[in-house]
Amino acid sequence: MSKRLVVALSGGVGGAKLALGLSRVLPADELLVVANTGDDFEHLGLSISPDVDTLTYVLAGLDNPVTGWGRRDETWSFMDSIGELGGEDWFRLGDRDLALHVERTRRLRLGQTLSEVTSDICRRLGIGVRVVPMSDDRVRTRLRSDAGWIDFQDYFVRQQCRPVVHELTFDGATLARPQADIMAALRSGDVRAVIICPSNPFISIEPILAMSGMREAIKVSDAPVVAVSPIIGGQAVKGPTAKMMGELGLEASAAGVAARYGDLLDGFVVDHADAAIGKVGARITIAKTLMTSLHDRETLARVTLDAAEALASR
Amino acid sequence: MSKRLVVALSGGVGGAKLALGLSRVLPADELLVVANTGDDFEHLGLSISPDVDTLTYVLAGLDNPVTGWGRRDETWSFMDSIGELGGEDWFRLGDRDLALHVERTRRLRLGQTLSEVTSDICRRLGIGVRVVPMSDDRVRTRLRSDAGWIDFQDYFVRQQCRPVVHELTFDGATLARPQADIMAALRSGDVRAVIICPSNPFISIEPILAMSGMREAIKVSDAPVVAVSPIIGGQAVKGPTAKMMGELGLEASAAGVAARYGDLLDGFVVDHADAAIGKVGARITIAKTLMTSLHDRETLARVTLDAAEALASR
Repeated sequence: MSKRLVVALSGGVGGAKLALGLSRVLPADELLVVANTGDDFEHLGLSISPDVDTLTYVLAGLDNPVTGWGRRDETWSFMDSIGELGGEDWFRLGDRDLALHVERTRRLRLGQTLSEVTSDICRRLGIGVRVVPMSDDRVRTRLRSDAGWIDFQDYFVRQQCRPVVHELTFDGATLARPQADIMAALRSGDVRAVIICPSNPFISIEPILAMSGMREAIKVSDAPVVAVSPIIGGQAVKGPTAKMMGELGLEASAAGVAARYGDLLDGFVVDHADAAIGKVGARITIAKTLMTSLHDRETLARVTLDAAEALASR
Repeated sequence: MSKRLVVALSGGVGGAKLALGLSRVLPADELLVVANTGDDFEHLGLSISPDVDTLTYVLAGLDNPVTGWGRRDETWSFMDSIGELGGEDWFRLGDRDLALHVERTRRLRLGQTLSEVTSDICRRLGIGVRVVPMSDDRVRTRLRSDAGWIDFQDYFVRQQCRPVVHELTFDGATLARPQADIMAALRSGDVRAVIICPSNPFISIEPILAMSGMREAIKVSDAPVVAVSPIIGGQAVKGPTAKMMGELGLEASAAGVAARYGDLLDGFVVDHADAAIGKVGARITIAKTLMTSLHDRETLARVTLDAAEALASR
């Protein structure tokens, strides 16, 4: 009997596009989407999990197609009023989005895990595939800039990625236990592919890989690991990936991404713009990786799964 | 030199109308509005102070004239979304109103007192007069009904005052320290009147009076105590006052309210509908007590202050 499970590692916007594509070409019980939680933070007394939420909204069809984050048909009365009261309004929380943070925070305080809350919310929003946070333990991405160490959301939202990044750290990652379903899947012998979605390697994927036992479990799964490049023709589709690569002394290119992932990768899907990528230590698949339509998402999902299939049958 | 301070004890909607009237006929530094906090509760992980909030919104001109609670120009996206997520939606929190609860909860968790938070929020909303919670300690009104003891908001909002009330208790009241500014004012020798706003005696005013030292401090202030009846012609303007009086075996009338306050009262302002009230142990003033316009609020405030003035000059 052939292997069934696909484990997809994802950050927010870019990763969620491919996760949506995968969710539409795979049976619901064959896909496990692992969400980065290094971006999680506490704000206004609320527990916020940006990548889990973006995945949730995208997979539920509730995402905001204009901003790429938050919910569609959003209203902003809460934010307006927080400003009046002297509260912090640099992190924009829409009224509908806020419900998720308030409800999650309430349940976490009651002792539920982030996995339990995420699972229940996905079920209520009609999401068939499983979305799991990378861990129920706390991991926090921090960045060393010219101004010293700063928290991720301070860098990403408040300072809009302006600081020059010299180093990243994932506080808590070595102590964090990877979420149980992820480890169970990877150890099941039933994983046909580990997909690394086109997310920022440094801030979306490496927090997942930094947890103790994670890289080993991927290796032990014996499944082909296929990444989709978040860089197209030297540019990031969205976000600071290319800028950050330059600051970290890496080549801001698809080849640079492959080099960063190193021998973790078996396959690497790059855009036609990067067809001349050359040898990178992983089997290259060339495809249209810019996902503007739902069709693009589904097609890239199929291409990525086919790349994994081809690697598995070597 | 004549005494300057007016201390007004208030619950929510009805009391806030008179508090607004007082705030418009008195210099800002001569009025201290004491808000009941027996109705406070935790909901969705948020600290909610309904009477403090109603007073805040009314005094800031932000109150909702249709509902009597919450904010004007409110939107309800949060509430809609909480419902989708399986959260509790029986207590209606508007998007703008929510900002106050989230910001207050955040500050309380940082160690600020309810007084500090209330003071700062009032300042930001441009409220000149002081609004203080009756205590920074926790007091919780509970009611004994046919179905046993229930929390106040369960009774008031979820069950819409349907249960028959046999008894009330104010958990924590005997241990709670009245807010320091209230005691300082009452002990200053500078109080010209203690006004009991036309709020429900049982659930809005008695929690304030139940705190240790409160009745004594009012007595020691030597200021005339004047209440405005919340009952007009045997009916409550709003809320369960009349119903509750019947259930507690009291006469549902202005006279019944005066009897309940007993010798605390020096003066009692009743509506023309209750002109035949007879002897109640306090000097009666007859006025229009139904406040439908801003002019009504100001006029009743003046009448009430005049009643206190007349009592003081006896």
